[in-house]
Amino acid sequence: MKRITVPAILAVLIGIHPALPAPPDAAGDIKAVLEVQKDAWNRGDVEGFMSAYLQSGDLTFQSGNARTRGWSEVLSRYKRNYAAEDMGRLDFTDLSVTLLSPEAAYVLGRFKLVRKDATSAGVFTLILRRTEDGWKIIHDHTST
Amino acid sequence: MKRITVPAILAVLIGIHPALPAPPDAAGDIKAVLEVQKDAWNRGDVEGFMSAYLQSGDLTFQSGNARTRGWSEVLSRYKRNYAAEDMGRLDFTDLSVTLLSPEAAYVLGRFKLVRKDATSAGVFTLILRRTEDGWKIIHDHTST
Repeated sequence: MKRITVPAILAVLIGIHPALPAPPDAAGDIKAVLEVQKDAWNRGDVEGFMSAYLQSGDLTFQSGNARTRGWSEVLSRYKRNYAAEDMGRLDFTDLSVTLLSPEAAYVLGRFKLVRKDATSAGVFTLILRRTEDGWKIIHDHTST
Repeated sequence: MKRITVPAILAVLIGIHPALPAPPDAAGDIKAVLEVQKDAWNRGDVEGFMSAYLQSGDLTFQSGNARTRGWSEVLSRYKRNYAAEDMGRLDFTDLSVTLLSPEAAYVLGRFKLVRKDATSAGVFTLILRRTEDGWKIIHDHTST
């Protein structure tokens, strides 16, 4: 039988909803999202790659001197900059996950992208929120 | 007389500590921190500028292809890159503050730095935590 504690009952009765505890392995869950994202990129699946981002008009992406706002706009930017036939080989290293609350976290990392004509590398900052569909990136800042 | 509500008393009695509500104008408070920071820079006060950052070995700063960790290391980086006599004129624009919890937020913005020999401009992402000393930057990602 599942035990329901008196404090839990009281909390419901009096309308207090304490924040959910962080899932036991939030950092692992977030790293798994990035692993799925990287694998999608490496099979040339830009939509799969984009599924790690919150599908929202509020999604933001900063790089160089520019800010892009909106999931569709970020997708367009990737499609413009990376031809499907030469998305190259992406790798993430040196990941550092910090939980800000049970519902929010940020990740620092390094990327390396090897393409036919050029190799690029740099650092990124991702801010994620926990949603019903798992952790989703709500902001990405990448620099090279 | 200050009113103490029954739910508040019950919450204390049963040991539930609901998260503090966000301060009424968190975004305003955060923008004020950046205003103080900018003013410090513009009078050549790099230590004053650095007081916006959490004085912690966990502070991180990413720019270009590099990650710097630790308040002292970030201070050293600024001192190395900007001579006190030519820190120039700094301005922040296009600030966008998003609260992640009552205790955490991020800011997107643009900076412009006019110095004797060069003008630089770019975008930044700041992640802040609310501390006993007010909001402090725990991570900065700047690109140009």
